[in-house]
Order: sequence, then structure tokens, then C-alpha cells
Amino acid sequence: MDPKSAGSRYLHISGIFYHGGSKRLLQESTMTKVALVVLILVGVFGIGTARSAEVAISEATAACLDCHSIVHPGIVNDWQNSLHAKITPQEALAVKGVARKVSSATVPENLQNVAVGCAECHMLRPEAHTDTFDHNDYRIHVVISPDDCKVCHAIEGEQYSKNIMAHAYGNLADNALFQKLEHSILAGTRYQDTKINLAPANNATKAEACYYCHGTRLELSGYETRDTDAAGELKFPIIKGWPNQGVGRINLDGSMGACSACHSRHAFSIEMARKPYTCQECHVGPDVPAFKIYEASKHGNIFAAMHSSWDFTAVPWTIGKDFNAPTCAACHISLLVNTDEEVVVERTHQVNNRLPWRIFGLIYAHPHPQKPDTSIIRNKDDLPLPTDFDGGFATTYLIDEKEREVRKQAMQASCLNCHDSSWVRGHWQRFENTIRETNGATRTATLIMEDIWRNGFADKKGSPYNEAIERQWSDTWLFYSNSIRFASAMAGGGDYSVFAGGRYHLSKTLLELSDWFEMRKKPDSVTKK
Amino acid sequence: MDPKSAGSRYLHISGIFYHGGSKRLLQESTMTKVALVVLILVGVFGIGTARSAEVAISEATAACLDCHSIVHPGIVNDWQNSLHAKITPQEALAVKGVARKVSSATVPENLQNVAVGCAECHMLRPEAHTDTFDHNDYRIHVVISPDDCKVCHAIEGEQYSKNIMAHAYGNLADNALFQKLEHSILAGTRYQDTKINLAPANNATKAEACYYCHGTRLELSGYETRDTDAAGELKFPIIKGWPNQGVGRINLDGSMGACSACHSRHAFSIEMARKPYTCQECHVGPDVPAFKIYEASKHGNIFAAMHSSWDFTAVPWTIGKDFNAPTCAACHISLLVNTDEEVVVERTHQVNNRLPWRIFGLIYAHPHPQKPDTSIIRNKDDLPLPTDFDGGFATTYLIDEKEREVRKQAMQASCLNCHDSSWVRGHWQRFENTIRETNGATRTATLIMEDIWRNGFADKKGSPYNEAIERQWSDTWLFYSNSIRFASAMAGGGDYSVFAGGRYHLSKTLLELSDWFEMRKKPDSVTKK
Amino acid sequence: MDPKSAGSRYLHISGIFYHGGSKRLLQESTMTKVALVVLILVGVFGIGTARSAEVAISEATAACLDCHSIVHPGIVNDWQNSLHAKITPQEALAVKGVARKVSSATVPENLQNVAVGCAECHMLRPEAHTDTFDHNDYRIHVVISPDDCKVCHAIEGEQYSKNIMAHAYGNLADNALFQKLEHSILAGTRYQDTKINLAPANNATKAEACYYCHGTRLELSGYETRDTDAAGELKFPIIKGWPNQGVGRINLDGSMGACSACHSRHAFSIEMARKPYTCQECHVGPDVPAFKIYEASKHGNIFAAMHSSWDFTAVPWTIGKDFNAPTCAACHISLLVNTDEEVVVERTHQVNNRLPWRIFGLIYAHPHPQKPDTSIIRNKDDLPLPTDFDGGFATTYLIDEKEREVRKQAMQASCLNCHDSSWVRGHWQRFENTIRETNGATRTATLIMEDIWRNGFADKKGSPYNEAIERQWSDTWLFYSNSIRFASAMAGGGDYSVFAGGRYHLSKTLLELSDWFEMRKKPDSVTKK
Repeated sequence: MDPKSAGSRYLHISGIFYHGGSKRLLQESTMTKVALVVLILVGVFGIGTARSAEVAISEATAACLDCHSIVHPGIVNDWQNSLHAKITPQEALAVKGVARKVSSATVPENLQNVAVGCAECHMLRPEAHTDTFDHNDYRIHVVISPDDCKVCHAIEGEQYSKNIMAHAYGNLADNALFQKLEHSILAGTRYQDTKINLAPANNATKAEACYYCHGTRLELSGYETRDTDAAGELKFPIIKGWPNQGVGRINLDGSMGACSACHSRHAFSIEMARKPYTCQECHVGPDVPAFKIYEASKHGNIFAAMHSSWDFTAVPWTIGKDFNAPTCAACHISLLVNTDEEVVVERTHQVNNRLPWRIFGLIYAHPHPQKPDTSIIRNKDDLPLPTDFDGGFATTYLIDEKEREVRKQAMQASCLNCHDSSWVRGHWQRFENTIRETNGATRTATLIMEDIWRNGFADKKGSPYNEAIERQWSDTWLFYSNSIRFASAMAGGGDYSVFAGGRYHLSKTLLELSDWFEMRKKPDSVTKK
Repeated sequence: MDPKSAGSRYLHISGIFYHGGSKRLLQESTMTKVALVVLILVGVFGIGTARSAEVAISEATAACLDCHSIVHPGIVNDWQNSLHAKITPQEALAVKGVARKVSSATVPENLQNVAVGCAECHMLRPEAHTDTFDHNDYRIHVVISPDDCKVCHAIEGEQYSKNIMAHAYGNLADNALFQKLEHSILAGTRYQDTKINLAPANNATKAEACYYCHGTRLELSGYETRDTDAAGELKFPIIKGWPNQGVGRINLDGSMGACSACHSRHAFSIEMARKPYTCQECHVGPDVPAFKIYEASKHGNIFAAMHSSWDFTAVPWTIGKDFNAPTCAACHISLLVNTDEEVVVERTHQVNNRLPWRIFGLIYAHPHPQKPDTSIIRNKDDLPLPTDFDGGFATTYLIDEKEREVRKQAMQASCLNCHDSSWVRGHWQRFENTIRETNGATRTATLIMEDIWRNGFADKKGSPYNEAIERQWSDTWLFYSNSIRFASAMAGGGDYSVFAGGRYHLSKTLLELSDWFEMRKKPDSVTKK
Repeated sequence: MDPKSAGSRYLHISGIFYHGGSKRLLQESTMTKVALVVLILVGVFGIGTARSAEVAISEATAACLDCHSIVHPGIVNDWQNSLHAKITPQEALAVKGVARKVSSATVPENLQNVAVGCAECHMLRPEAHTDTFDHNDYRIHVVISPDDCKVCHAIEGEQYSKNIMAHAYGNLADNALFQKLEHSILAGTRYQDTKINLAPANNATKAEACYYCHGTRLELSGYETRDTDAAGELKFPIIKGWPNQGVGRINLDGSMGACSACHSRHAFSIEMARKPYTCQECHVGPDVPAFKIYEASKHGNIFAAMHSSWDFTAVPWTIGKDFNAPTCAACHISLLVNTDEEVVVERTHQVNNRLPWRIFGLIYAHPHPQKPDTSIIRNKDDLPLPTDFDGGFATTYLIDEKEREVRKQAMQASCLNCHDSSWVRGHWQRFENTIRETNGATRTATLIMEDIWRNGFADKKGSPYNEAIERQWSDTWLFYSNSIRFASAMAGGGDYSVFAGGRYHLSKTLLELSDWFEMRKKPDSVTKK
């Protein structure tokens, strides 16, 4: 297909110089100048990924840009700076080996020779999306889903669908026990006759609390007509649960997740996803304090001090050449090669491929679940938990020792490029020791709590989370044990392991549980020693 | 005025090369070389704002630099790198339209053709400043005030005087109820007969605690003679409350505020003020956790990952060209234009021009006060609070719905450059829902607290903040509800909305208030369920 | 010595281009091209410290690189980018005056004319290290110690040995009272008959908790044979306590400390050590919240906003030219000069050379100990503490007023380059006021605690840290008073001084101690007011 044929116009990658505001494309004479600028830019800054400085855009995308470059200049500019605007799928498919970013064997012919523009995504698979609507003679949908992205990025889409994060909505919303915790945290309150009464949280609260990260369930609830500056009255769909970019968002095509959770719209940048700030959005703690602990680790220190000279766009990502200390992505997701261009570890968007242990969110750390849908798990008491209250594993639903070994080796493959095997082994032994020790501490907390329940000073029946003392208990495993385990896993010991919500607070809370219990047990409330 | 005329000498902007240590200006021969270097620097680094590479400095400033470039090289260098050293007011006044930074219609003639140097500010309005003193035959003052800056930056000075931040000293010091909270936090303590006795905090403590941000009241308390390396014995004023750069500092000319709070001395940089780190100084939390929440938001993520390629000095500031995600300044202060150079939102130094709701610092979120002096507000119980203890608004003193709508639209104007109106509306609905819900929760906390007071287990009379249980209550509205509201306002949901001092802790504290109350009510202290 | 003589080969500094994977050195023809690249790099990026683009490497280091550039490309690349690979000790010794980095008068002749490569450090002083072993016909040791680094960096090694940080292991492990606190935090727990029983923490837990920062005691525990990809079966030492980079690590040559704690392996970069992220690893808080407070201070704001244009590699470090606001290193360690190249303050690796007061870690702030080994200190009750429980100083062991004055002036020397003396004096008066006030508050907390002990509601005998209420007490001095003092010392007032673990929480905890005590004292548990 000739890129100059009907149905496509040229976009000279100019970023600053593209002037959509003129409501028509640039004149040829201007284009020559722009092309010159582009060539200079390519020469100077080495935007070398693009095979050509000229990338055609589709007629439909050109129509989008005519208005939206004026009304939404921010996102249009993000897109113009993105690879999606700078390279066609056909060129991307021609890249061989580990440098290739488009993992689909092929892409639909109509997409191959134009930039991946507005229309290419927002008009993709129109029949699959319930929010598809007529917009200035084009049938577009608002919400792009992983199944849209999967058209070009098949392997990543497939892997992500098996990622526990893709199932984050249902793993919370469909777990009866987690729903009790959610309710006790988000509920509206009314105080009457010295009692706090709880009313179910409304959807607006849910959407900006737990489901901000877990993802909302999107639903088409109707249509509305709005008067627009650019084109007068237009009809738009009304979408419940919107906006949201949670990792497990239930999309209007039924797919799960949002690639934009990490690859922010509309730059969809690998650079951003590789930097730890992206993960911070949902993992700042204290429940999952991964980002804070990374910051205070040796790796985080090296990143903070030196990363301005690293290359976050290179694919593959070469250890020691492109970067000198791992970020979150390096350990968990990215394709890494060594300076001999040998693959150190394969890219995966199923994050637990390199994770033998699940170290947060539950009473005890435990082997990773076999399946991403964790709502199906039942422990020996028939509760939807991967462990019993006494710490035993619901082994039927969890990966076995052999699979843990495979994942451990996948993780350690990258460590071994900077650390000798005795270092890595010593680190890992401490990590598994810490899993055992923190499980022991939350077992102690749970035994005290069970004693309190048994003695009738608190009531487990309705919910194990809706009394003050029960929240002391949940602090031990929801926050403190997690901090300690993340500090251990990421060699970010020191403060987060001890004084910053670590062992100091874990041991203090055990003492407080015990102190509270003792106070209730003694009728005269005096407990001299 | 010829810049080479008497009363001014040349400063070749050379940063590194200016050698004040010689105690005289550079010889002509050296100056030629320096000028060459300057031209090269201007060529290579594009210090293009200055019309000319040669900026005259006044005789008085030259005299200052003779000594101070040796004794205070750090701040002299900051100034040399600043626009104040690189462009004259006359040149700045010649800039047309939205790019103009000097907002006064004109500036005094003696200032027009020299760099804005030491003397231009420290010798301005000598009669207005009580700290003006003779210093090597010049009459200078130590503390520069907004009224000094206003000589060139009239609009910003005027706006800032209406900014609630300018009144931060009096809004705390002149509010009897806030003084009780301040006292209970800052007081010195003595323990006697099992009682904690409080003694008023001294000024040194106050200056580095609440008034570090709110600003101190400066007062001339006398003079002293000091032996200096550079010039032997010299007389200097002694200023109570110094040093301080709080936003509501009471200056020695009676004006309020410190421009250097955000535009740090002596670079007075727009770049620094536009980056979020500046706001972090006073808004890191947990009372106003704006910075932390920004860091963990999508906007903060984009800033952190990408801002090294943004332009923080361009005026006006173009969305999508100069920056791709808002910083604090972008939403609250800066003049923003779109890529068609149309004004998106006007610059304002009266920050609440874009804020309909006040979401922190008080028991309930409420409409913004009409006037920046909040110490005049009285609720229906005649207390200096914008709401009653039961949540009702002191409407006489607060902006009405119409004004709230105006401010909401001013704020949303920038959002709409990257987000469609359904996104913005959805976001805002959640925000206003969260205001209602958190007000509901602090109402519950207050009802429990009132029950505790009514039952005599705590005493509200002296102060509602000086017993342990009263501080549990203040935690709910001073920290947790604020976190939740900021997380909502800034779309930084997730952790700060729930687990990092959010709804998890708000709901837990309600349970703890109730648990504490229940324990006191039951004489046998056993409360089986 | 001719660098081309036997015993050394050339390494052309090429970073990317060095191809150790070939298992032999590059051919001459290739070397010419590489040299050209190097010259260009030196020209363009100004790697100007090296006298020559050609640095010889020793035969032994070449042998290391043959394998390790393949198996450990990350660290080999770090080294290639380091000054150790770019300049020989002889060249470094030739540098005159304050720019000189090698402080030893001379270095052993065999090291003078080759890069400081793998072998130069890992084969140094083989007889001194108990982990020295045969490795492919070379006798190497795994763990590099300060005594190794001292061969070239004599003054820094000597100073660091007197640094309290070098003694961090023993200062914790050999202090009986600190061991009780450590035990109560790290112990394993068993719950039996409503009692929490503590079992000593294992070494793995210790190594990643307190001793992650303090340093572990390394011990050779035997040898093992491992099958390696690169060279088949090889014998390696097994080292207890490994890995660790704590500041007070007890090394296998008996020396104390790890230079790599701050100068991360294998770049050993002055740039990294000068940035505050390095200090964050152990000083993020809440026990020593120095990093967080720096971030929220004016200095931290200037650093964050502007440091991308500063020079962190220049030696000496020029105030106003290389940097415009201090980092941790600038105030505490670095050699600083002014723009006249006069020394402002000498470099020191004995950090308390500029510290009159010790403001963390103990019940009361106090003058710095005279000797770095603090385990020898005894207070008037014969406890290993620098103060009594009532706040009196164990003066025999602490520096006197004269020495405090010397250190204060050393610290203030750098302040005075940007601040006039009234500013600095005002700041320091507040700081010393805060030391007194916070000591007063922890005295109040201790008096309440002593009342609780005296009344038998808690038991001090076994340990003063293993009951819930005792931990409330330790919170006051271990966290809150420290936050307040660091905020004062670093002019990072505002939140960390008040609401972020500052005076708000200190005063609240006093009230809670009192509330808890009152509840136990009243048999009917009802305390109406």
C-alpha cells in the first residue's frame, strides 16, 4: 500500500510545529520546511527508531485532529511525541528479534501503513464496545481496552489477562470476606444511641477509594446531548464508573484492565512504565509500601542519583549499558539482555511469573495462587482465603514448590548480573526467613485476637473488621508485616524493616492487643505487677 | 538613558567569571574576554530572554557586590543566574502581551535601566521599613517585603494581598480557638502530682513550628555592632522573628507575606515556583498532604517521569508544548495558554480564585471564606469558625453558590485541555460527594466526642484539644478527612484515600472513640458481646 | 614505569565497546578505532579529569575482566564508568592542592601505573583478610574493607575510623540496654496462656533489621564448591553476615565500616555520595528523619528543583558555582571552597567534627560523645547511656563547651556563604532552644513512665521496652523529639516540626501516657470531670 494513496494523509512529525488549529493540513511548502526540521531533529536527537521521517495518518485520524488538536492540545501533543505517531505498524513489524515491540504476528492491513492515531484505536472493534456511538460521521468508542491494544500487542495482552492485576476488580468485589473489610472502611456512618451505624458506600466513594487502583466496573447508562464549542450539539454516551484507569477495570467490551494504568495516555510510553513513579500510584503503602522501600534501598538510591544519564527507551534493555540498577519494571516485567545481547530474562506482563511468594494483602504470606481469579479460592474453613486463620496454606489453589523454584530462578536471573551467587543466596535466605518470622508474628496477633473473640470482648460474627481492637489486629498483617517483607524482598532494610511501620510497630501492636485484652479481663481494671 | 552613563557600571553576565573578590570591577581587557564567553554561552545555551548581553548595574549595587560577592558568594551567584541580573525593567516593560512579567504600568525611572540588583531592592522605600539603617554610606533594609516587589509586580502584589495565605499570621494568632489548639501542641510541660501542666511556648518554638509556614511577626528590637571581616565594625539592626519566610510574615513595613516563600532568594525563579517541591515545604501533610498525594497521582507520575524535558521558564506557559501534566502552580496560579496561544486561564496570586471549597484545617469542609482575614468569621455559636460543630456553614462569611460556580469553571478550564467534559464532570462529582461523605464522618466523630463531653469523661471547657481522647477526635478532621479530600481533589486516590491516613484510619478512629467511651461507661469495665 | 611494560595491558575506556566476552583483549586495529571514539567522547563530554585517554590495566585485572565482564556486566560497567578505571594512582597523586583525591602521601609502586581495577582491591593485603582464597590462580578476597581503601585514601580511612558510624555495630551490640530494646523489637513470638513469649531473633532477621544499617559482623564459616558457567567447579568461602554494607560492618580483616555504604560499588562515585538519596538509605525516619525533613526544607526544595544543572563531581566543591544549596554531604562531610578558591570548610569523614549536639537515638539530646565507641559510656546510675533518666549529662564521656563551640563554628562556616550572621545566629538560637524544650518534654514523659513503674502498672526490671505503655514512652524520644530536633536543625520546620510526627504527636503521646495511667489508677474506671 502506497502511503500516499487515498485514505491517508501525511503527518510530518513535528510536535511543536503541527498546527491542527488551522483546521486543515499543512500546505506542501510548509511541509518541506517541517520535514527539514524533522530531519534535523532526528539527526541531533537520534530519534532513530522510525525508519522514515514521514508517517502517514489516516483520513479518520486527520479528521479527529482537526478539532481535538484545538480542544485537547495536551493529549494530542502527548500522542505526537509518542512512537505511535512516529512509526507505522508495518515498519514496527519489520523489526527483527528482541528489539521488536509489536508482538502480534501481523496486524490488520488497514492499520499497517498509517500512524497509530486517534481513529486507529477509538474506532477499533466497534461492535465489541457498548459505548460505540456516532461522532461526526465516525463510529467511535471512548474507552480503549486491553483487547484493543492486543490487536498489535498480542503477547502482552494475553499475558496481562493471566496477570492477577487484570482480575483486581473481581478479586475484591467477588470475595465476601474482603467485602466486609471494604464495607467497614468505606461505609457512610450515622451515630445514634451511642452506636455507629454503617450504610453501604456509594459508587462515587468506591470509585475513588479501593477501585481507583483495582479498577471500576464500567457500564453504559445512556446518552446525553452536549453543546460543544467545536461542533455544536453532539450526542455522547454516559458511562458509569468513568473515569478510571485501575489495573482491573471491567471494560465495555468485557475485557479486564487498563494498559493506561502504567502506559499513561496518550504517550503510552515505555520510559514512563519503566520508571518507579508509575508503580507508586498504587504501591506507595502502607499496605504495599513497595515504592517507599525502593526509594530507601540501595537500588533506589542508585536510580535517584544516576538515572538522568540512563536510557529508558531502549528495547531490549541492556544491563550495565542502558541502566545500572533495577527499577520495578526491570525486576518484574522488562525484557533484559546483557552486554553480549544475550537474553537475561524474558519480558512478561503476567507479573507473578517471577514471583514465588505473595507477600501482601492477607493475614499470612503464602505461595502465589495458581490462577489470577482468587475469588475461587477456599481454605479449609471454606473461607475465600489462601491460608487458614492458623496460617496453613490452601495448597490446592496455590503454586507448588517446583513452580516456586522456576519463578525464583526467573527473578534471580537479573540479580546475578551484578551480584555473585553467594550474595543472591544470602539475600534470598533472609527473605524466606522473614516470610516465616512475619507469619509467626501475625499468628501471635491472630491467637490473641481469637482469645479476645472467644472471651466475648469483640464479636467476629458480623465482621472481623468493625471494632477498634480488630483494626489493631488487621494493622499487624495489612501494614507492618507487609512493610517488613517488602523491605526484605527489596533489600531496603533499615527503617522500613524496623522503625517506619516495621518490626517496631509490629511488636508494639502485639503488646497493645495484649494490653487491651488484659484490661478487659480484670474486673477491677488494676493490674499491678 | 545611556546605560554607560554615570551611576551605572557594566556587569557582564558571566556567573563563573565575575570576580568580585578583586574588590574592584574587572579591567576592560578582561571584560572583552568575558563578553566573548558570554556571547558563546548565550549562543550555546540560548539564554535568549535578555535583549542584550550587557546589563548595566547601578553604582550602589556595584558597591554591594564588591564585598558581598566574597562574603556571600552563594546568594550573589543565585542572583547572577536570575533574570533580575539579565534584563532591565525597561526591557522587561517593552515585552508585549501575555509574555510580559513586569505587571506594573511603569517603574520608577531610576530603576529602569539597571539590573534589579542588591541595592534596587534593599534600598527601595527606605522610609517604609523600620529596619532601614546606614551601611557603608547606603541606607538599606534587611527584609524585602511584597510591597517592595510590588513596585514592578503590581498585579501580583495586589492579588497576593487578597490571598488567604498573606493573612496566615493573623488567621492563626488572632483566632482564640486556634490559639487553644496551638497552645496544646507547642506548650512547654511540667509534670507534677500526676498532672501535666502547660506553660506558654516561647517565641523561638513558635517561630520554627506553626509560624515557620504561617510567618512570624517581625519587630525591630534594637541595634548591635558587629566586627566584620570585610569592613571592620558595623552597626546592624536586631530583628525579632528573624529569619522567616512564611507566607503570612508581618513585615517591617507592615505588609504581609514573603514572596521568597515560593520564589527563593536570590534567584526568585519562576522555574522553582512552578515545580511542586516548593509547595512541599508547607504542604507535605498529614494536615495538608497535597504534595504526597500529588506525587502518587497520575499527574505526579507524569511530572516525575518526564519533566526533565519540559520548559519551566516559558511565559506564558503552553499546555502540551512546555509541559504535559499540571504541577501545583499550573492548577492554582500560573497563566496557561494552549498551542493556539489562547489564554486558558489567567495568572492569579490569589490562590482561591480557582477554589470553590476549602477542604482542610477545620472540622468540616466548607465554601471558601469571602475575605482573606478569617479571624473575623463567627459561626452561630459566636465561635471564630466557618462552620458550626454540627456542620452548618457560617454562610454570611462564605462565598455563595454562584461564586463557587465561577471558581469551579476557572479550575476546570485547565483540566479540559487534556480531558473531555464527561471525565471532568465525573471527577468533580466524586469530589463533591467526598466533601459530603467526609463531613458526615467528622460529624459522627464530633457526636461521639460531644457524648463524651456530656458524660463528663472529658472537659471541653478549658480547651477541646488538651486531653488524649480529644486528640483522637482532632485526628479525624485535621488529618484523615483532609487526606481523603485531597486525594479526591487531585485524583490521587488509592493509598492516600484509603490506607495512608485515609478512610482506613478515619473509620478506625471512629471505632476507637467509641471503644474508649464504652470502656469508661461500664463500671465493671467488662463489655462482653 | 612504562605503562606498556609487562604486567599491564591497555584498557581503552570505551564503556560500551570493551568486549570482555571475546576472552582476549581487543586487536590493535580495533584499538585504534576505540581510541578514536574515546578521544571524541573526551572531547564532547569533557571527561577531563584523566590526564590521558589510555589507562593501563594490570594483567590480573585483565584476567578478572575476561570472565566477569560476561557474568557480571552490571558491576563491570559501573567500574568502567568510574574514575578508578580512568586514572592511575600516579596521575591522581600528581594533582596538587585541594583538587587532589588520593590523600595518601604515596601508594605502593605496583599500583601506581595501572587503573584501580578488580585485582588492585580484591588482591590487596591478602594476609589480612580471613576470606582470602585461591581463585583461578589468584589469591583474592570477597569483602573490601576501609583498610583496603585506606591504602590510597589514608586520611579518609583514618577519619572514618574515628567516626561514630564506624563503631555502629558495637555501639548497638555491646550496649546491654540497647540490646533489650533490640530484643523487644526483633524477637520471635509465641503466644501461650494469654502471654506473649519472646525468643531471641535469628541472625537473618538481625542482618536485615538493625544491622542492615549498623553493619553485620562478618565471619568466615567455611568453604564450598560451586559449579560455575564460566569456569566449572570453583571453591568459594562462605561468609556469615554476608551480604551487608552497613556503616559499622565488622570486616574479615578486623576493620570497621564499609565505604560502599555511601560510595556504592563499583562506581564508588563522589556524585552519588554527595546527593541526599544515599543518606536516605538509613536516615529516612521516623527515628532519624533527616532525609524527609531535608526534602521538605528550603534547601531540599532548591536541590530538587535545580540540581540537574549542578556539578556533583567537581573537587573541590565550589559554593555558588558547582551547587546553590547544601546537600547532606555539603554540611557534614565535603570540602567546600568559595568562588575565590578559599577553603570554607575542610573535608571530614569523621562526621561529628561539625556536630556539637547529638540529637537522636536516646532519651535526651546531649553533647556528642568524646569517643566513637559509645558502649563504654556510663551515666551516674552506671547504665550505658550518655544521660541519666532525669536528663543529666554523663559529662565525663561527652565533649565540653569549648569543643562544642569549635564544632558549631565548623558547621556555621558553610551557612555564612549564603546567610548573614544574624540569620545564622537566629537559626542556631532556635535550635538550642528546641534541644532544651524537647528534652523537657521527654523528661515529662519519663516522669509519667516512672510513676507508672512505681505504681506497679508496668515492670521496668526485665526491660523498659516490652510493654505497650513503655512503647508509648519510647515513641516520645525515639521518634517525635527527634523529628522536632531535625526539623529545627535543618530549618525544615512546618510539618515535621508539628503535624508529621512532631509536636502534635509528642504532646498527644504525653496525654495518652497520662490517660492510660489515670485509667489504671481508678478502680471503678470512671473518671468524670
